[in-house]
Amino acid sequence: MIPYTAPLRDMRFALHEVIGLDRVSAIPAFESATPDLVDAVLEEAGKLASGVLAPLNTVGDKEGAKLANGVVRTATGWKDAYAQYRDGGWNSVPFEPEYGGQGLPFVVATAVQEMWQAANMAFALCPMLNQGAVEALTAHGSDEQKSTYLTKLISGEWTGTMNLTEPSAGSDVGAVRTKAVPDGDRWRITGQKIFITYGEHDMADNIVHLVLARTPNAPAGTKGISLFIVPKFLVNADGSLGERNDLRCVSLEHKMGIHASPTAVMAFGDNGGAIGYLVGEENRGMEYMFTMMNNARLGVGLQGVAIAERAYQQALAYARSRIQSKSMANPAGDSVAIIHHPDVRRMLLTMKAQIEAGRALALYASAALDIGKHHEDPQQRRLGQAMVDLLTPVVKAWCTDMGCEVSSIGVQIHGGMGFIEETGAAQHMRDARIAPIYEGTNGIQANDLAFRKVARDKGEAARTFIAEMRGLDAKLAAAPGDDLAAIRAALSAGIDALDRATDWVVANSRSDAQAVAASAAHYLRLFGIVAGGSMMARAALAAQAGLGRGEDAAFYESKLITCRFYADQILPQAAGLAGVVTDGWRTVNAIAEDQF
Amino acid sequence: MIPYTAPLRDMRFALHEVIGLDRVSAIPAFESATPDLVDAVLEEAGKLASGVLAPLNTVGDKEGAKLANGVVRTATGWKDAYAQYRDGGWNSVPFEPEYGGQGLPFVVATAVQEMWQAANMAFALCPMLNQGAVEALTAHGSDEQKSTYLTKLISGEWTGTMNLTEPSAGSDVGAVRTKAVPDGDRWRITGQKIFITYGEHDMADNIVHLVLARTPNAPAGTKGISLFIVPKFLVNADGSLGERNDLRCVSLEHKMGIHASPTAVMAFGDNGGAIGYLVGEENRGMEYMFTMMNNARLGVGLQGVAIAERAYQQALAYARSRIQSKSMANPAGDSVAIIHHPDVRRMLLTMKAQIEAGRALALYASAALDIGKHHEDPQQRRLGQAMVDLLTPVVKAWCTDMGCEVSSIGVQIHGGMGFIEETGAAQHMRDARIAPIYEGTNGIQANDLAFRKVARDKGEAARTFIAEMRGLDAKLAAAPGDDLAAIRAALSAGIDALDRATDWVVANSRSDAQAVAASAAHYLRLFGIVAGGSMMARAALAAQAGLGRGEDAAFYESKLITCRFYADQILPQAAGLAGVVTDGWRTVNAIAEDQF
Repeated sequence: MIPYTAPLRDMRFALHEVIGLDRVSAIPAFESATPDLVDAVLEEAGKLASGVLAPLNTVGDKEGAKLANGVVRTATGWKDAYAQYRDGGWNSVPFEPEYGGQGLPFVVATAVQEMWQAANMAFALCPMLNQGAVEALTAHGSDEQKSTYLTKLISGEWTGTMNLTEPSAGSDVGAVRTKAVPDGDRWRITGQKIFITYGEHDMADNIVHLVLARTPNAPAGTKGISLFIVPKFLVNADGSLGERNDLRCVSLEHKMGIHASPTAVMAFGDNGGAIGYLVGEENRGMEYMFTMMNNARLGVGLQGVAIAERAYQQALAYARSRIQSKSMANPAGDSVAIIHHPDVRRMLLTMKAQIEAGRALALYASAALDIGKHHEDPQQRRLGQAMVDLLTPVVKAWCTDMGCEVSSIGVQIHGGMGFIEETGAAQHMRDARIAPIYEGTNGIQANDLAFRKVARDKGEAARTFIAEMRGLDAKLAAAPGDDLAAIRAALSAGIDALDRATDWVVANSRSDAQAVAASAAHYLRLFGIVAGGSMMARAALAAQAGLGRGEDAAFYESKLITCRFYADQILPQAAGLAGVVTDGWRTVNAIAEDQF
Repeated sequence: MIPYTAPLRDMRFALHEVIGLDRVSAIPAFESATPDLVDAVLEEAGKLASGVLAPLNTVGDKEGAKLANGVVRTATGWKDAYAQYRDGGWNSVPFEPEYGGQGLPFVVATAVQEMWQAANMAFALCPMLNQGAVEALTAHGSDEQKSTYLTKLISGEWTGTMNLTEPSAGSDVGAVRTKAVPDGDRWRITGQKIFITYGEHDMADNIVHLVLARTPNAPAGTKGISLFIVPKFLVNADGSLGERNDLRCVSLEHKMGIHASPTAVMAFGDNGGAIGYLVGEENRGMEYMFTMMNNARLGVGLQGVAIAERAYQQALAYARSRIQSKSMANPAGDSVAIIHHPDVRRMLLTMKAQIEAGRALALYASAALDIGKHHEDPQQRRLGQAMVDLLTPVVKAWCTDMGCEVSSIGVQIHGGMGFIEETGAAQHMRDARIAPIYEGTNGIQANDLAFRKVARDKGEAARTFIAEMRGLDAKLAAAPGDDLAAIRAALSAGIDALDRATDWVVANSRSDAQAVAASAAHYLRLFGIVAGGSMMARAALAAQAGLGRGEDAAFYESKLITCRFYADQILPQAAGLAGVVTDGWRTVNAIAEDQF
């Protein structure tokens, strides 16, 4: 296994030069987030990620998490690593200072989280799910619930989970059957939940389950679901841990990847009902869950970027060290490292370019979230919120598909060694495969984008984003050099394609919803490619500016080449995709079920 | 795990109606291969595949092959399954009658082999490698070698292996260091080989290793490699087994997939040198190896089709049975099976269309091989050989990339269940991942296509194939209906794109070889998409004809819809790819090694 090195220089470039972190730091709530502070945070996080978490990634894959007698044991070294993570204060980075959070911008936390996910995705899932619980309680918990649970979830002393899925309620969360009946000022919860990430483990003293359940006489479907806090150990009035609640981990799943992340089947109420506490109002559970789910979707999209970066580092190291065959440029010479072979270079650039585009897009969406939440100008807040809402499904689905593609290319670069588990490349590919599935499958994301995010406001948010991308054109036109001209032309053609497809989605979402649903995945992919292309255009302008300043020429040249590669090899897919979106759907709904 | 059903109706359609098996059956050598016989062979093979081999696929994945004290034990039930396969005469299907083969066309053997590979890829690798050994000995062995080894390899009593790879000699086979020194009329072999598929196992009495090695004073590189027969047990003059040869399995690899296929590290000559017998002439080993490698490459391409078919059957069964969410067509109704959701239908059609295109292309190339070998007209033989040479890298790489894509879609259709190993979808994806790597990585295939198969004859073979595809245009124009018109337009645009890209490859292969190498993978993908599109156009014409005969309407309509889907959703990638081929390569060779 190749060590992980946090890509600090790339992250700083993306934050400061590409997506404009200064727009966020200028918000009064974030005035402490100076560039120096941000860089220091990234550097420290990088040490923990590469020094502590990354070396445990292989250990976790091999050992997995194990259930025995109701107790889940994480892999060797994980408890200690979690203690270091928690004691370093890393869990509290993006949360509100009122309950012990550091109050750093979400976009900075995103960059930090990329490191945890890249270093050890199975580990990083624990804080990621905890973050969802924190967000849900911050937004919807009572003061008492906040003082009892939130402080310890933010410190990381306890961890949180999201208990949504049941055997018959996957994508259709409204089909939840777990029951909650009142019992004084508390509730009794009974039911079974599946796919509960870190539903049981040994890294924290308590686990705070957020559970979706149905109260008596609740309306059918999503409108009859309520959200409950169901702690593993009940909490005494003085904050100490009391008795064990009536819930248990029944089994752990045997998965293709993220072996070390315990995916639990949880049974609630086998002995009379687990004690639960209603969050907010009855029957508003779905709405509350979406509070946390949206940010979790950005987090999962980021996993795609992170695992791709990890796979890239692994493949790059191999390509630099593996000697095989002569160079075409010097057939009479010695055999060379395979990084000198054009097809290997093409594969590495395909990885690199998409990682950089995906990272910038995820950070851009995260900055929009900060602006949407904290900007002092309500108009800016509205715009920021609209952008993060629009881009969330794109980041989730496009970046996770990319994570799968890139980690598979990583295997390919290793040749036969890539298929051997000891090499480590295969683990990244296996780990990456979950991200297009959970937190709403990428098919769900595509529908979310097309119907809720684009069509519902008649394309307003999408057109705002498109206009913003078109705004780059004048800058690209004014910049010197062939590369910028090529990038400008490719981006412009890409935006035209996205524009056409967007018009079609808006025009047909009501009159022919099934056609739009059939094309939604292609539309999302097109959106991702073009949005990523706009990030690469910003990066190219920043690189050009850097070169103009005479700084760090090799770095900025590399960035420029990578942006040009994206324009030459990735953006040209856009035109074909737009045609598929608008004209390719007919057969999808024409074939009968028994004709498959 | 979902049972496997051999797609007999689809195979018969592909053989008889799409690729024109009658062209092969008309060759005198194959006059016994009547349609009825072929159909009977397919049906019987289907029984063994689905009844015996397929149920062992999961067993093999879980147990793997195990090495202890130099002995490799295959998984539970495998020895017996191999005995049934062997005793049924299945191993001898495509081989020459002179040594006990059944002398059926290679194209029929290809259809049969798809079933083994789909039912149980890890199992089917054993006969696949054996087939390579048979072909090499048939073409280059002495009469004595043939009578000693060939009969038993053809019957399947013994199995054969290909020992090419060494730690420093992977894609660069010329770097082989294993030594052979003369010892009377035999040779003594010493060296280590890696990645030897079924290098050791317990399913046959003897294993005949074909080993590449260097004789004393041999020229450097590929011109100094010779091919040796190195049997596990020496063979006495009467054909009985004699003493154990000086070779052993040192270890087995721990792989991402095909767990049950023992991938051996083989040590030859630890105790003075393994006894080997030279095949043909010294220093011509590479040439001989290519005899077997080319057919093996078709076989690996077929694995892509096969595993995709298996993954499709699994996903289809799940999509028909998994109830989740309302149908968009009837939001007030009950929840429906997910096959009614447009995005799931799109995914299923993406699988189905590419499988059918890939299967037809693999069969078409196999038929060309039969014509190239056995047609009575030398002009037809030359043409057939040119076509199979041209299409071999396309079938190998395009179909195996497709196998990965399709098996990954299969996982996605299962949602969370796809990531759980017990479901079985993940195994197909893990198994499929090796196929783009072995038997020449897909990058090697791309170079083979661009430089050896297209540029070397200045595009003659490629243009012959393109002209053949263009020949479909008049038929498509004459056929009635929107579907055929849409297919005609998409195919025509695709061929134009391939034509442009081919001109560019031919024009630049000498003057700018590095540019061509940088674009070769895209060129191969473009070639595959368009060649596959031409197969789908043939299929559409055949379906139209079937509908015209008033037969089996649901089947032929389904075929027509699937072909239209391919034209609407897959072929539109061609234009963009052609642009990437001709104009996208500049950055690939521009970036410095330390700028990655």
